[in-house]
Amino acid sequence: MQDPKALVFDAYGTLFDVHSVTRLADSLHPGKGAALSQAWRTKQLEYTWQRSLMGRYDDFNAVTAEALDWALESLQLAATGEARTALMAAYRTLGLFPEVRGALARLGERRPLAILSNGHPDMLDAVVDHNELRVFFGERVFSVHEAGVFKPDPRVYAIVTARLELAAGSIGFVSSNGWDAAGAKSFGFSAFWVNRGKAPVERLGSPPDGAADDLAGVAALLPA
Amino acid sequence: MQDPKALVFDAYGTLFDVHSVTRLADSLHPGKGAALSQAWRTKQLEYTWQRSLMGRYDDFNAVTAEALDWALESLQLAATGEARTALMAAYRTLGLFPEVRGALARLGERRPLAILSNGHPDMLDAVVDHNELRVFFGERVFSVHEAGVFKPDPRVYAIVTARLELAAGSIGFVSSNGWDAAGAKSFGFSAFWVNRGKAPVERLGSPPDGAADDLAGVAALLPA
Repeated sequence: MQDPKALVFDAYGTLFDVHSVTRLADSLHPGKGAALSQAWRTKQLEYTWQRSLMGRYDDFNAVTAEALDWALESLQLAATGEARTALMAAYRTLGLFPEVRGALARLGERRPLAILSNGHPDMLDAVVDHNELRVFFGERVFSVHEAGVFKPDPRVYAIVTARLELAAGSIGFVSSNGWDAAGAKSFGFSAFWVNRGKAPVERLGSPPDGAADDLAGVAALLPA
Repeated sequence: MQDPKALVFDAYGTLFDVHSVTRLADSLHPGKGAALSQAWRTKQLEYTWQRSLMGRYDDFNAVTAEALDWALESLQLAATGEARTALMAAYRTLGLFPEVRGALARLGERRPLAILSNGHPDMLDAVVDHNELRVFFGERVFSVHEAGVFKPDPRVYAIVTARLELAAGSIGFVSSNGWDAAGAKSFGFSAFWVNRGKAPVERLGSPPDGAADDLAGVAALLPA
């Protein structure tokens, strides 16, 4: 594998911990925070796949709110409008995984870094700025929104080749979502899987070029 | 809503109980049967959505086997080739939900019935014949295989309008999978949701025309 000319990162789950809403969820619904966070995330992803296949794209803000409503009802939790607003707002201030800043600093020394995410541009800008990551990514924060479909549709990954003006084979893609890494690899990127959950590799026909337990481990696989 | 000119049924989870493999799974992996069945089914559906979006269709036999391998590894179960073969074979002899035969008999009196399923044609023929349902469906057992993509892509539902030579608006579609009912409704069918798990309605923008806890309940919503 050649040294990638640019590195592109998934956002939610890879850089930002989607389960950092658990504490807020648990304060609103004592004892149910972890279950709510889990159900919310699972349903959110399902809706992205199902809406994409139906040809009924709606933006990630809307899908995330719809998934929250489903998750609250499935757990029989009655949320006030205020609580629902607070949970949605938490998505704009998600925390970073602890090793992310150091890994980005190392990897960004000799190549441009970018983000490619399901998130609506407004959500992405908010969470990038909240975590002071603009120094690493500049304006290279790309959203599926301009393709009108979610990952892992190849039209999404094509945003990166067009915007960075690079061939797919010279781009490295990093995701904690095994299916996203598989989609990126299938498109033609080199793919690196941040296997935070120590899960089995996805059987989707395009295994990653490398994998590690966290972003520091993935960084160690690449020339600094 | 007009009386549908034909009724089309999803197969797995709607007519056939995918969790009827639990007993076999539990005899092979004592105490882990339910967890294995659940992980297998969840991953199987995820792979159908992800492969469809990636443009990497593989047939439902292959996807089901890949999902089984993932589920076994995720639960750290070492399966012999023989056990794996037995679990895959069980998919061809899934049991019927108890009310299905009576509901089909009633609903089939005055309109043609059909099946539209993710299943490979061989798998579908096997499980239909095993349960002696051919009397209800004849040759109207349709597989997504001819479209080369899985539900809820609209090209799948278009198989039915083409084969039955009916407009979408005159077809009723019945599924236990809320997202499948939403995909059918979005395509233009009337949609009925067999809500076996008493789950919240899916927030996908196209709620069903009717819902009930089992197929007998759905049958009661329609003129006999």
